[in-house]
Amino acid sequence: MNSELIGDKVILSGEGASELYNIGYYGRPRGDTLELSLTEASYLFEREKINICLNQNSLDFEEFFKISSIRMENFELKYLVYKDLKERGYYVQPSSTDFRLYPRGIRPGEAPAEYFVHVISERKPLSLTELTFFMETAENVRKGILLAVVDEESEITFYVVKRMMMKGGMNPVDNFKGSGTLLEDRVVIFDSKLAKSLYNNGFFGKLLEGRLQLSLVESAYLLKKKIIKIVDRSGNLLSLKKFTGTATKIEPTFRMKLNIYEDMRNNRMVVKTGFKFGSHFRVYKEIESMKSHLPHSEYLVHTIPDDHVFLLPEMSRAIRLAQSVRKQMIFAYIKDKKAQYIDIGRAKP
Amino acid sequence: MNSELIGDKVILSGEGASELYNIGYYGRPRGDTLELSLTEASYLFEREKINICLNQNSLDFEEFFKISSIRMENFELKYLVYKDLKERGYYVQPSSTDFRLYPRGIRPGEAPAEYFVHVISERKPLSLTELTFFMETAENVRKGILLAVVDEESEITFYVVKRMMMKGGMNPVDNFKGSGTLLEDRVVIFDSKLAKSLYNNGFFGKLLEGRLQLSLVESAYLLKKKIIKIVDRSGNLLSLKKFTGTATKIEPTFRMKLNIYEDMRNNRMVVKTGFKFGSHFRVYKEIESMKSHLPHSEYLVHTIPDDHVFLLPEMSRAIRLAQSVRKQMIFAYIKDKKAQYIDIGRAKP
Repeated sequence: MNSELIGDKVILSGEGASELYNIGYYGRPRGDTLELSLTEASYLFEREKINICLNQNSLDFEEFFKISSIRMENFELKYLVYKDLKERGYYVQPSSTDFRLYPRGIRPGEAPAEYFVHVISERKPLSLTELTFFMETAENVRKGILLAVVDEESEITFYVVKRMMMKGGMNPVDNFKGSGTLLEDRVVIFDSKLAKSLYNNGFFGKLLEGRLQLSLVESAYLLKKKIIKIVDRSGNLLSLKKFTGTATKIEPTFRMKLNIYEDMRNNRMVVKTGFKFGSHFRVYKEIESMKSHLPHSEYLVHTIPDDHVFLLPEMSRAIRLAQSVRKQMIFAYIKDKKAQYIDIGRAKP
Repeated sequence: MNSELIGDKVILSGEGASELYNIGYYGRPRGDTLELSLTEASYLFEREKINICLNQNSLDFEEFFKISSIRMENFELKYLVYKDLKERGYYVQPSSTDFRLYPRGIRPGEAPAEYFVHVISERKPLSLTELTFFMETAENVRKGILLAVVDEESEITFYVVKRMMMKGGMNPVDNFKGSGTLLEDRVVIFDSKLAKSLYNNGFFGKLLEGRLQLSLVESAYLLKKKIIKIVDRSGNLLSLKKFTGTATKIEPTFRMKLNIYEDMRNNRMVVKTGFKFGSHFRVYKEIESMKSHLPHSEYLVHTIPDDHVFLLPEMSRAIRLAQSVRKQMIFAYIKDKKAQYIDIGRAKP
């Protein structure tokens, strides 16, 4: 078998080349020859299945590795991920994204690939635009997205990215009426009957000795639904516009948070602050009763602007934390006036 | 007992006032009268121990609460924290910081207060300058720092902040020599003997089929210690200056990370990437042997610039995650050319 490095491909010819393809699904047949990508060739070279020549002179692995690193962007990272997936027994093929990954135990041809794999350095920021482009491309051909993030010490973390529908089973709350007072940065309902009703039926706010302390998003939501009126400390009525204006001064991301809060509440979920988990919200599909303790919340939801850029160490931290408290990490944003939810979770392929 | 709201104090006189002081340590005696802060007065009012008049007209609790919220910045938050600590059975007194907290079971006068309590809204950024000022003030009078962070739904999370010494028990590594190649954003040592020595004795990098992949900070450290030389892909020798220049282009925070990495390595600790936990480093005091798996790392260390401003939800996430994997969260920075470490941990007073 002859193998020659030409550009960013290794071209195999002679006996054995077709065997590599027929048995291992390496490379793409081109007439009588087989064309390997640099990652495939490195893998076979390191396993001593092939030798590689450049201008008919044999290369050693170190030489080949350095040349590959010059000829292919991100070569080291791609090779790490390719090798890792191969060693777990998967069939992996180069694709327009970095790789196509087949389901466990499935050979190319038996069934379609399951994931598009994107290899990313932890140092490279990832924009939401780029991520949704990945998702749309994959959705069009019914594949999933697997991000393979390589950290600076060459460890790989895999993430599955998918869209989420957020739906819960709560009944809407609308049969209570009353008013609250905006203090510095929260609204207090002093009427203890209303306070208890909102808390017990809608799970709004925090009850303190019969008073209800509402967050700004909760207050704006109830105001918009005409369930409560809000006055300032001097007793002046605040319009929704005035209230959201004040709230935005207190919290610059207020409107973004409110849009997502509202969408999830309208979809019958219970939405509470996620501060202790470093996210905007923790979300429950349904809460039967507030008599006992709150049940386990299923999601952490963090709102992001539609031009958000993910820093991967930060994303890693958020997802790792969500997982450690058995929640799904959801990133939410508004696109064309509609709320969108993306579920990013660690995967162990 | 008469009690009159004057400015941001409530002045008690008559029978019962001295009893409040002698038994509960509320207020500060001023001649025949007792002066309460608004938080103390609210607490006693809500528990129906006192009534409060304004211009000799009785106030109801709601009126008093609203007026207090106008007269004292952060009143609602301070009251939430005061009430919480009182209900846990602590003695708490107003102080130049928000409160002084006495050790459990200790009355004022029996022993000094243990903590200065600072009440902060989760929305308020906290600068490192401010935090170190808090710490220095407290250290001068041998007190600790307790941050009481109130989230938007009025839940309180307490954090204890203290300085840390970072010291480990590893032997220095210096008897190996060789060279590595800088590829795109990591250094590879192809010499498998050197690779194994560095990995097994210093726990540097990641071993892959006899090659060692080093991170940029690891490489710079070994280069500075003259343990390795580094060449580029064309074989040109890179000076330390040239290498750190290139590394800084790849990773803007490189120098900051390297300074802290170096300090901890020089203090005989084992420092590895903390990417999976969203921090710069995970740190081991000592590793006996790499033969088996790495043991549990004790710390997560995140480096910050000396003008860093903490966003509390982000800080909350980092600390919560560290705790969920049984590690201490340490923030590290360089001040006057010296590495400084701050341990911030959740407390349950």
